[in-house]
Amino acid sequence: MIQQDYLHDGERLDDLQRNGYRIIQNPEKFCFGMDAVLLSSFAKLTKGQRVLDLGTGTGILPLLLCAKTQAASYEALEIQEESADMARRSIAYNHLEDKIHVTTGDIRNTSEIYGKQSFDAVVTNPPYMTDTHGLKNPDMPKAIARHEVLCTLEDVIRESAAVLKPKRSFFMVHRPFRLAEIMQTMSKYHLEPKRMCLVHPYIDKEPNMVLIEGVKDGRSRITVEPPIIVYKSPNVYTDQLLKLYGYQ
Amino acid sequence: MIQQDYLHDGERLDDLQRNGYRIIQNPEKFCFGMDAVLLSSFAKLTKGQRVLDLGTGTGILPLLLCAKTQAASYEALEIQEESADMARRSIAYNHLEDKIHVTTGDIRNTSEIYGKQSFDAVVTNPPYMTDTHGLKNPDMPKAIARHEVLCTLEDVIRESAAVLKPKRSFFMVHRPFRLAEIMQTMSKYHLEPKRMCLVHPYIDKEPNMVLIEGVKDGRSRITVEPPIIVYKSPNVYTDQLLKLYGYQ
Repeated sequence: MIQQDYLHDGERLDDLQRNGYRIIQNPEKFCFGMDAVLLSSFAKLTKGQRVLDLGTGTGILPLLLCAKTQAASYEALEIQEESADMARRSIAYNHLEDKIHVTTGDIRNTSEIYGKQSFDAVVTNPPYMTDTHGLKNPDMPKAIARHEVLCTLEDVIRESAAVLKPKRSFFMVHRPFRLAEIMQTMSKYHLEPKRMCLVHPYIDKEPNMVLIEGVKDGRSRITVEPPIIVYKSPNVYTDQLLKLYGYQ
Repeated sequence: MIQQDYLHDGERLDDLQRNGYRIIQNPEKFCFGMDAVLLSSFAKLTKGQRVLDLGTGTGILPLLLCAKTQAASYEALEIQEESADMARRSIAYNHLEDKIHVTTGDIRNTSEIYGKQSFDAVVTNPPYMTDTHGLKNPDMPKAIARHEVLCTLEDVIRESAAVLKPKRSFFMVHRPFRLAEIMQTMSKYHLEPKRMCLVHPYIDKEPNMVLIEGVKDGRSRITVEPPIIVYKSPNVYTDQLLKLYGYQ
């Protein structure tokens, strides 16, 4: 079987540098970023777990997590059929049909789709931006992936809490400017924030990502990890980042 | 007038390296730490403001803030008469009686003592630890300053919110392990977290302090500042810390 069987017009097959896995992406539409890679390192999944990815896009998180962890299986929910289809083709290309299953559906219906208390872990890289009024075309795939057009932070947290078993973990990457709202909303749904890591482009710059773990019905006590610093000089990654990417 | 007039047994007079100000401390009981110094740099006070320090101890925060800012006046509340008395003697030594006024009283009664919506800013370096059951003597001055023997985090936040005017700021230093609880409690009392800075002993270590600003009735959006790193090698401060201390 040749690669071209898997690819549609405008798409390309990118190497994930893990287990030889590849992902189908369309650079005109949406490509995964550093946030997904860092979240896949931050999420602590253990052997045999059943994991849900909310808003999987082209499937980057379950693909990376399959390579990095011993979790048993992944459900991946995506509202955009075009992205879900790309995810399914990437999964087929990597022969991971037995481990990752993609559903086209709405995050707001997560607990109806999968059932309550049905997962050992939830991972999510949701839309970051609240302001949808400035968007020229809110139906664009990029807009839906980046802005809260079709679901809000509260939808993501509420549904994650509903489908998690007690004492199990939720892992999210988001933007630091929403940290207070994130913690308040997690608390509202009893996903107690337990671990956090800020990602700074440079050591002396404000962070532009936050990685957070919440435990369902957990006790109030959070570990703030040492920061992740991305660059040591322009275009030169830190050793820490290269390790997280698996290059060292 | 000689220094000894101001000092009781066991006390010493320490130079604050600011405006020639000095503070009376008893090293057997409690001395101020880096947390107070960093909070005095983090708190943004403007000309003419009326400021409250909740749990002033020996008065370190209003003394440092007098040297660093243009605020008009400070009320300082302290429940331990011995500490309050030391604070009053330090204020007299520095001739700051017109700017700083110390009241012996209970944080839980703050809004009764000073009246609601009566301050432009609140600063506080409250007790950090919740576990009081392991304390040999919960009446010790150090225990009261460090553990929530006489007031809880919720007391501090509730009373701060009550005495602040709308849109005015609350500045606190605390421990990162309580960050989620801090944000949840601030939100509960409409002190919206707006600015945060983590303090790490070393760049690759977990933070051991968090500085946080909340704005009464503020909108939900927080700025996470670049981290403060204390040491570059054992016993050698970073340039950043030396600047904050005023040595560079």
